[in-house]
Amino acid sequence: MPLRSDWSANACPIARSLEVVGDPWVLLILREAMLGARRYEQFRAALGVADNVLSRRLQGMVDAGLLRRAPYRGEQRTHHEYQLTAAGSDLLPLLHALALWGETHTPAPRADAHMEIVHTACGHATSTPDVCSRCGGKLLPAEVTWRRSWRTPQVTSLASAEPDDAPG
Amino acid sequence: MPLRSDWSANACPIARSLEVVGDPWVLLILREAMLGARRYEQFRAALGVADNVLSRRLQGMVDAGLLRRAPYRGEQRTHHEYQLTAAGSDLLPLLHALALWGETHTPAPRADAHMEIVHTACGHATSTPDVCSRCGGKLLPAEVTWRRSWRTPQVTSLASAEPDDAPG
Repeated sequence: MPLRSDWSANACPIARSLEVVGDPWVLLILREAMLGARRYEQFRAALGVADNVLSRRLQGMVDAGLLRRAPYRGEQRTHHEYQLTAAGSDLLPLLHALALWGETHTPAPRADAHMEIVHTACGHATSTPDVCSRCGGKLLPAEVTWRRSWRTPQVTSLASAEPDDAPG
Repeated sequence: MPLRSDWSANACPIARSLEVVGDPWVLLILREAMLGARRYEQFRAALGVADNVLSRRLQGMVDAGLLRRAPYRGEQRTHHEYQLTAAGSDLLPLLHALALWGETHTPAPRADAHMEIVHTACGHATSTPDVCSRCGGKLLPAEVTWRRSWRTPQVTSLASAEPDDAPG
């Protein structure tokens, strides 16, 4: 990660986490991975990010254990995709905290641009990032959708972590 | 904020939040403000950060509404301190999400270096960032302490937002 300081051996877990996710692109790539992106071209199209920025961040996220690089067979040759790991998936509360704070404390560019985190297990929007504010259930990716009014379709289910079944 | 992209008018609240807090120093300064720091020298001493980095971040955090710059009368002249606003205080779940993820997914430099978020209203450590995992109560700053085993003293109470009583 191209940060000026190295907090990876810091006693404070907040600082150590920032060594991994203290970069806006990393969290936006993670957002897209939660929304189902796996292939390089999907991340690039969704984020409009320069190739050198994207490839460096993806590699850093693989090194940090947020994503797993896995081969898949294309028409002509073998490609690679980026799968969400358990450690990456465990950052969902962080993305939710950012979404909820942004909804409350930053102005939306259009009055109708809003994001809701919906706990599908109970059917209600939540105002807390990790546990449903309505029913108290844990916000598991398989039971959460994001309703983003400015997108078509508006509702997107979230991806769960891929089990690590790579040969040792 | 010295980011390469400008997400302040993005429809996505995650991106808009990252425009404000997508910088490790901002979140480390916020951590210290939660722990009670108010004066420039306190932030500098706690973080070991260069003056140009610190002063630029503090100004950006004032502009973004996370901190409020307020005068106080020193021995010789008037100084300024940085008070946590309600918007800044509302980032506590984000810091907690970072702390909990870091405790789980990054290696501590020493086996005995651990951070616990204690909900003093019920007396138990929480494993969720916004609502106590034990009693379900909202984690208000006035009812939370951070237990950091590598610090002396280990237990620190958190600062609450300062009411905005500045003359209009």
